[in-house]
Amino acid sequence: MIVDVSKKILIVGLGLLGGSYAKALKRFGFHMSAITLDQESIDYALREGMIDEGSTELNERIIGEADLVIFALYPHVFVEWIKKNQHLLKSGALITDVTGVKGSIVYEIQNMLRPDLEFIAAHPMAGREVSGVENSTEKMFFGANYIVTPTDKNTPEAIQTCMELGRLLGFSNVTTLSPKEHDEMIGFLSQLTHCIAITLMTCNDKENMEKFTGDSFRDLTRIARINDLMWSELFVANKTALLEQMNLFMNKFNELKEMLEREDIDEMRKMMRHSTKRRALFDKK
Amino acid sequence: MIVDVSKKILIVGLGLLGGSYAKALKRFGFHMSAITLDQESIDYALREGMIDEGSTELNERIIGEADLVIFALYPHVFVEWIKKNQHLLKSGALITDVTGVKGSIVYEIQNMLRPDLEFIAAHPMAGREVSGVENSTEKMFFGANYIVTPTDKNTPEAIQTCMELGRLLGFSNVTTLSPKEHDEMIGFLSQLTHCIAITLMTCNDKENMEKFTGDSFRDLTRIARINDLMWSELFVANKTALLEQMNLFMNKFNELKEMLEREDIDEMRKMMRHSTKRRALFDKK
Repeated sequence: MIVDVSKKILIVGLGLLGGSYAKALKRFGFHMSAITLDQESIDYALREGMIDEGSTELNERIIGEADLVIFALYPHVFVEWIKKNQHLLKSGALITDVTGVKGSIVYEIQNMLRPDLEFIAAHPMAGREVSGVENSTEKMFFGANYIVTPTDKNTPEAIQTCMELGRLLGFSNVTTLSPKEHDEMIGFLSQLTHCIAITLMTCNDKENMEKFTGDSFRDLTRIARINDLMWSELFVANKTALLEQMNLFMNKFNELKEMLEREDIDEMRKMMRHSTKRRALFDKK
Repeated sequence: MIVDVSKKILIVGLGLLGGSYAKALKRFGFHMSAITLDQESIDYALREGMIDEGSTELNERIIGEADLVIFALYPHVFVEWIKKNQHLLKSGALITDVTGVKGSIVYEIQNMLRPDLEFIAAHPMAGREVSGVENSTEKMFFGANYIVTPTDKNTPEAIQTCMELGRLLGFSNVTTLSPKEHDEMIGFLSQLTHCIAITLMTCNDKENMEKFTGDSFRDLTRIARINDLMWSELFVANKTALLEQMNLFMNKFNELKEMLEREDIDEMRKMMRHSTKRRALFDKK
């Protein structure tokens, strides 16, 4: 691609992420189109100049003209779409996605895909607590990670194009991981943290706690406000890796509990010093 | 008290909290003194106009003149200090503290105290990730909670004075709880969150994770940078209440794990909706 603005980009699913992609890419002058369920989303995006055209139908012309198709859908909806509608895509079109899990999606899509199409998977690690195209903003991508997860079915050109897309969107770090590495990493850094936040938020329903809340509890539960439809699907789609991370966490938590039971100050301090030292690695650079 | 600026206030332990108390109270014109281990802390506080005088010794005049004595020490150091040095305090002096646990401290101090002295316990729920008098700031107290934990040994006057102190310091919410209620609340909102943060930070030492970190993981581990000496002591001092909260958390976390194992999307979504709804209560007002 290398910023060939004559290319046509289609976004399927114009929500928060799809909308932010449209906003970020339109700045370069690409022809942007969108297919989404909701006419209001299209109207909004047209009004804001984020897209050139859009449809709530499977508009064959729009779909058939796209050089790059970005799927910003729930995992199972994405898989279903390809199954039913891939015949509408132009020969040679490149497909990418925003799905937060990879192993359970990438191979399934690649295996069913027409041989004249290519799917290169990517995960933009950005989000907000709000949803919908009206909340779109390219600012989400600044400072964030964009991870491309190629398989041996992918061409070097597709991998390069997808990495370039990440940079055009404004992501600070664009890297590649295998689908398996990606899922382990996301299981730990993102899904486990959401499991912890919702557990903390629901494990003690005592009244009036909110009157005494400080920043620690607020920080640990910010993500406890969660899109239940999306996250339950993502958890199940990454079940094996997530269960592994949940077990690692539980075992360590249990060790700490046993230290406290036997009042083993030395071991607790050792764990806290390890924690303090390791946390420094994760500071924003 | 009611802002009687002729009163003399002594702070024992001039660190981050003690220093912030001095800074906040000096604005009203009180005579402020300090006893602390480190001459540099006293020099700094004198230079900054936070105190009128200070000593690294058990200066009998300074201690004997104080009307209100605020102990900003580790729990066991506070208890030891009272045991050894309470004979130096002026008859009628009021004592308060900043200790983050109450049940294991309040009764022990009150039971050994001279009958002509009174101890009214308080917990200023404010902190920073840095320590030392040089990092003192009254800003820590804005928007934060100040909890007084009286027992039936306390006089209404002492309770009123201590609550007034919280307001003079700049705390937004000044309330009372019994020592037991306080310890349960703090076990949940503060200590459990620190247990979770240090567990998350140490349960998976895989390399390069930091390259992919997003805000969720950073939020959940901000407090994983922890003062091991202080927190291990606080955990043990609140062992019973904290173990109870750890068990509540583990049981719920285990429920979630079982839902995932059996791919029970309905139950997961129910838990997530409960979490989302309950989190709204904890938003900053």
